[in-house]
Amino acid sequence: MGRRVSSDLSGRSIRVGLDVGGTKTDAVAVDADGDIVARVRRPTGWGDEAVIASILDSVTALAEEGGFASSELRSVGVGIPGLVEPATGRVLHAVNLGVESLDIPGRAGSVLRVPIAVENDVKAAALGAAALRGDGASMAYLNLGTGVAAGIVTDGRIWRGVHGTAGEVGHLSVDPAGRLCGCGQRGCVETLCGGGALAKAWGRPGALPVRDIFEAAESGDPHALALRSDLARGAAAAVRILVLSVDVETVVIGGGLTALGDRLHTDIVDALRREAEGSAFMRSLRLDERIELLPVGSPAAALGAALVGASEHAPVPDKEIVPHG
Amino acid sequence: MGRRVSSDLSGRSIRVGLDVGGTKTDAVAVDADGDIVARVRRPTGWGDEAVIASILDSVTALAEEGGFASSELRSVGVGIPGLVEPATGRVLHAVNLGVESLDIPGRAGSVLRVPIAVENDVKAAALGAAALRGDGASMAYLNLGTGVAAGIVTDGRIWRGVHGTAGEVGHLSVDPAGRLCGCGQRGCVETLCGGGALAKAWGRPGALPVRDIFEAAESGDPHALALRSDLARGAAAAVRILVLSVDVETVVIGGGLTALGDRLHTDIVDALRREAEGSAFMRSLRLDERIELLPVGSPAAALGAALVGASEHAPVPDKEIVPHG
Repeated sequence: MGRRVSSDLSGRSIRVGLDVGGTKTDAVAVDADGDIVARVRRPTGWGDEAVIASILDSVTALAEEGGFASSELRSVGVGIPGLVEPATGRVLHAVNLGVESLDIPGRAGSVLRVPIAVENDVKAAALGAAALRGDGASMAYLNLGTGVAAGIVTDGRIWRGVHGTAGEVGHLSVDPAGRLCGCGQRGCVETLCGGGALAKAWGRPGALPVRDIFEAAESGDPHALALRSDLARGAAAAVRILVLSVDVETVVIGGGLTALGDRLHTDIVDALRREAEGSAFMRSLRLDERIELLPVGSPAAALGAALVGASEHAPVPDKEIVPHG
Repeated sequence: MGRRVSSDLSGRSIRVGLDVGGTKTDAVAVDADGDIVARVRRPTGWGDEAVIASILDSVTALAEEGGFASSELRSVGVGIPGLVEPATGRVLHAVNLGVESLDIPGRAGSVLRVPIAVENDVKAAALGAAALRGDGASMAYLNLGTGVAAGIVTDGRIWRGVHGTAGEVGHLSVDPAGRLCGCGQRGCVETLCGGGALAKAWGRPGALPVRDIFEAAESGDPHALALRSDLARGAAAAVRILVLSVDVETVVIGGGLTALGDRLHTDIVDALRREAEGSAFMRSLRLDERIELLPVGSPAAALGAALVGASEHAPVPDKEIVPHG
């Protein structure tokens, strides 16, 4: 993979997208038609060196899986859970990866010799989810993971806002008497429907606390029932906020908590309907029909990262780059 | 004003904008340079016929004030507090004007013989406020009147969303234990900072209930102090919602309640600062520096209506139009 990529018109044109998550990296290779021609999933390492190694190993594995040559690789896009400096692609505060500040374009680009674009994972997943829907309608991707945030796509592009805080609905308070949020405010959407906040409120050990909450709720445990209700209320609040501020057509819900599947979907639909019962205005918005759950195993996030890479016009590094900073 | 407008290249090119409010109509005439060359304010009538008469009378008065001929008039834009059908310009449910359904383009256009564009008053005011700021930065205009709603302007254009509900932040609940809203939900932003909701919660007679609340609060009345605090909390919540969903650079606050002036501005700034105290994330957004109050008497709404009219390419009616429906 170390050769400089030339414009090889006889070969395919491959765009790679990587969703670098806290535990695994999901990688896809996309051809010029936008079709996924290869996909691999590998564990993500911890810390700067291991994250770079995960990225490079994933590209190598993809090339083997998809049978493409390094000369056919045109770009790599990386979606990552952290703050991404728009100008440099440097990742800051990716706490789930043990990364404080990492120049992925410089580090990985000097080896792969193709343009590397980096994007926040939720924004990348939003772009991928919109591409998978394919109807061009505006949408928001609401990520229910450890934390809660949304990515907004209009006219096929990520809506960033002025300072990149567009879609940060997780830290809007919807209950002044609610639980204290990790952000320091009280009653944030994330305190209701973030996996981290729910696990903390549940307070019992377990590998999959939110699944445990749902199981205990099904046995009638009152604390679990309350938390299950909170999850639906918080997600419903986020959906309302997205529709009554940006007014997207559809809210696609993804993230780790969507492993709960139909039970989660039903709960959120019920919450939206119940909370609209007394309001002709809210009923007229038909919010219960405007949400979708991203299927478990969807390649949306990695596909979105590939699209981010394909849309970037970053210079191709042709020599070793000394990481700055 | 009855002649058909021809392309009179020797004359000026005048765009008229009308902000048709529940009590008064604010009208401006804008020349080709975008300068306001005349302004008149007249009482608004009640019901279909009176509203049309208010519009026609305002245009006549403006022509006298500004000394322009009907042949120089190019377009009329109307901002109005109601639902506007995008395709037809028909106004629905303008309850404060006694209008259930009114075809203003047909009715006024058949007399004025220039294109008539109609826009929701808050959206028109948002466009006007953005033009007055003149820096091209994205902004939201948060209207604190009888009700609460925002208009969002990005790239110099009104952001409508898919179904026109973008900016309807007044009916987002921020307190499940809050007061019942006219919309049927509980704890909506509007229950905290809408003039109608505050007057109802205050429950004492008076021409200017919110001013009465502020005066009673200054005398230490506990109920008034609580309502004054609600007003600031509600406006602060709306500002946070707009920044953490759309991420506009500035929120300009206007509407009848801004007659309270500096006291209101100070209260909202204090609420934003106090509620961000425990949160490094919220402090980093510097929301207290990103709000502005529209000066009392600002022509933003009428100017915005003129811009709406100027941007429309509606056909010029050259004969009487029979209102449909």
